Amino acid sequence: MYVLSQSTDHVYGRAVAAPQQAQALKEGNVVFEPNFDASEYDARLAKTRTAMAESGFDVLVVGDPANINYLTGYNAWSFYTPQVLIIPAAGDLVFYTREVDASGAVMTTRLSESQVRAFPERYVHQPDCHPMDWIAADMMEKDLGRGTVAVEMDTAYYTVRAHKSLENGLPGATIVSAQELVNWVRSVKSDLEIAKMRTAGKIMTNVMTTALDFIEPGVRQCDAVAEIYATAVRGLPDAGGDFTAIVPMIPTGPGTGIPHLTWSDKPFKQGEATVLELGACYERYHSPLARTIFLGQPPERLVSTADIVSEGMEAALAAVRPGVLAEDVERAWRDVISRYGLTKATRIGYSIGVGYPPDWGERTISLRPGDKTALVPNMTFHMILGMWMDGWGYELSESFVVTETGHERFASVPWGLTVK
Amino acid sequence: MYVLSQSTDHVYGRAVAAPQQAQALKEGNVVFEPNFDASEYDARLAKTRTAMAESGFDVLVVGDPANINYLTGYNAWSFYTPQVLIIPAAGDLVFYTREVDASGAVMTTRLSESQVRAFPERYVHQPDCHPMDWIAADMMEKDLGRGTVAVEMDTAYYTVRAHKSLENGLPGATIVSAQELVNWVRSVKSDLEIAKMRTAGKIMTNVMTTALDFIEPGVRQCDAVAEIYATAVRGLPDAGGDFTAIVPMIPTGPGTGIPHLTWSDKPFKQGEATVLELGACYERYHSPLARTIFLGQPPERLVSTADIVSEGMEAALAAVRPGVLAEDVERAWRDVISRYGLTKATRIGYSIGVGYPPDWGERTISLRPGDKTALVPNMTFHMILGMWMDGWGYELSESFVVTETGHERFASVPWGLTVK
Repeated sequence: MYVLSQSTDHVYGRAVAAPQQAQALKEGNVVFEPNFDASEYDARLAKTRTAMAESGFDVLVVGDPANINYLTGYNAWSFYTPQVLIIPAAGDLVFYTREVDASGAVMTTRLSESQVRAFPERYVHQPDCHPMDWIAADMMEKDLGRGTVAVEMDTAYYTVRAHKSLENGLPGATIVSAQELVNWVRSVKSDLEIAKMRTAGKIMTNVMTTALDFIEPGVRQCDAVAEIYATAVRGLPDAGGDFTAIVPMIPTGPGTGIPHLTWSDKPFKQGEATVLELGACYERYHSPLARTIFLGQPPERLVSTADIVSEGMEAALAAVRPGVLAEDVERAWRDVISRYGLTKATRIGYSIGVGYPPDWGERTISLRPGDKTALVPNMTFHMILGMWMDGWGYELSESFVVTETGHERFASVPWGLTVK
Repeated sequence: MYVLSQSTDHVYGRAVAAPQQAQALKEGNVVFEPNFDASEYDARLAKTRTAMAESGFDVLVVGDPANINYLTGYNAWSFYTPQVLIIPAAGDLVFYTREVDASGAVMTTRLSESQVRAFPERYVHQPDCHPMDWIAADMMEKDLGRGTVAVEMDTAYYTVRAHKSLENGLPGATIVSAQELVNWVRSVKSDLEIAKMRTAGKIMTNVMTTALDFIEPGVRQCDAVAEIYATAVRGLPDAGGDFTAIVPMIPTGPGTGIPHLTWSDKPFKQGEATVLELGACYERYHSPLARTIFLGQPPERLVSTADIVSEGMEAALAAVRPGVLAEDVERAWRDVISRYGLTKATRIGYSIGVGYPPDWGERTISLRPGDKTALVPNMTFHMILGMWMDGWGYELSESFVVTETGHERFASVPWGLTVK
């Protein structure tokens, strides 16, 4: 009978057999092929290393699951215990994860068994030791703990406690912030990535159309969200959907003045609006979309806001082309709404792509005053025009790619307030 | 026309009007009532303050969205930008969040407008400043930055960069780790919480039954997951489902040897097993469940493993009662499987309850050797017997509450390998 392989020395148990067996299994039978060919991942790594060299980084510690997926194709819900991808300026990448997840990393990526290192199980959720203690010791052994070690310091899942362990464990290193180095590499997509986002956009069209059809007075919010999830996850006949980094947000009635509410089991009501901020995901690439629906006769303020927002959307999208700055796009929007006496404090968009909870945004480019990033072809954005008022609100959004001459939208759903 | 209120001074703009208007709206019309009465939240806060006093903490900084929900009822997908709940040893709680989320926090909780403080929008995703800079300055102004300030340092959405800003901004404070103080308070549920988990368990029964019914050779994995999501979110006629902290994990074929894979759009195959590790959630309370299905004639090793695991489950659950240690429960399991020559490196269970991504576990009690926590009534666990072998695997789990005399399971699905 086969038995789960265990390292016998759990404290410094370097000999984890599982990845070796996984390697053998992989050679005969890759469980999930990575979503892209080797050349795509090689190009991403090369760009990352160029950026590392420009910043003088000897080693990069990547904790963001989206960045790990981008660089290796690894995709599992294993980020609830610590995991980091280590990128030295030259030589093999090393991925650190929990023992039970190590074989999966080998079987589903191009990483070989020697590149996947598993911290022992006894480090999980303990008050007196942390997985990063073991990881730092292993990095020292592999000579990955020297020079300037840049760490992703503003990413979910890489905790303060993890970082303190890393600092203690790499006494000879100069530890600096990597800022959003990999996120910036991600900001300009390859054509292969754009193809994934187009597919996500097609799924998104179905999801939003389903939601707008399904919502009626008396229908429970949770029942509408069930349809939304099912449509998003079924996807297309030749392209199944994936989980989205953000869950459906459908504030309704007075809740429409609040952007990030999810749902309840209360029914939709005649005479109330509902804002739908939804997403679709294909192989971890997102295409979000927001629309607003009113059940009954909408108030004049909502109708007029919807018209103004459409005019602003048209102006902002018309401003999108290579060479234009992120802030210029926002200004085109602001010029329109200010003519109607409206203001909006929040950015009107942000860079999107690969994502895991809590965000499908890349935390790099924002369409807002002061962001002087020049647009280039194959940047992708979610432009979200959310007007959150006192007790009511309206949202309209589009996900799009910057093209040589302008933009291309990923989804295809009419603008304006849906009235039923 | 109503216009989103904006602070004009974005750098130190203390005068955020939105929460004040939200207060007025709330008095007439609470958008979502918190899930429990005031007395429940008061009791939780009192227990938290008792634990703070025992540890000598003057101020507690809570970053875990599950802990924030537990203490205030606040529930929105706003944790992708920084938010923290500040608990002084005495006096009002203060919740810090993004400007657009502030009014929602007032409208959906018992927090008053003066207790919700909004960092200005211009701090979002910037290279040169961080929301925690503003929050720390505001804490200083409110005299919340003195004495021993305990911070949750191993939680997902409170980043290293946030913590560095807090340290810089509170130069007079002694900053220490809070460890899992609130998580430990959460580990023993009230009867009202147990009722929520029973409801989640009923939903879970439907979800697992649906999944086991739906999976057939040729059915795409994503189509099965669509049914799983829809069933979980619809919930019961009188209790709609919520999103789960972990997405459906359904490794299939050789992937069953890997615990945390999600799904693809490939079909299930005749002659292969699928492990279903699923969850159901009601008002943020979780009841997870795992089962295994085989399409066709299962191999002998899988059949015998399933039998052994059922015997081990029975022994482990029989060991559960007040006064027994967490490690004793695991020993009862290990005694069974070791008789058959099997071993398992990972813990067999953990404390569960309120959760947000990435985990429905509470990161406190683990059913494993060395955990000497004595069980008390109303502790709740997910006991998950996952046997991850080389290229195959088997899982069986139960979520349960410790009762005065033993345990009560939340879901009701037969044990053993489902064969179709």
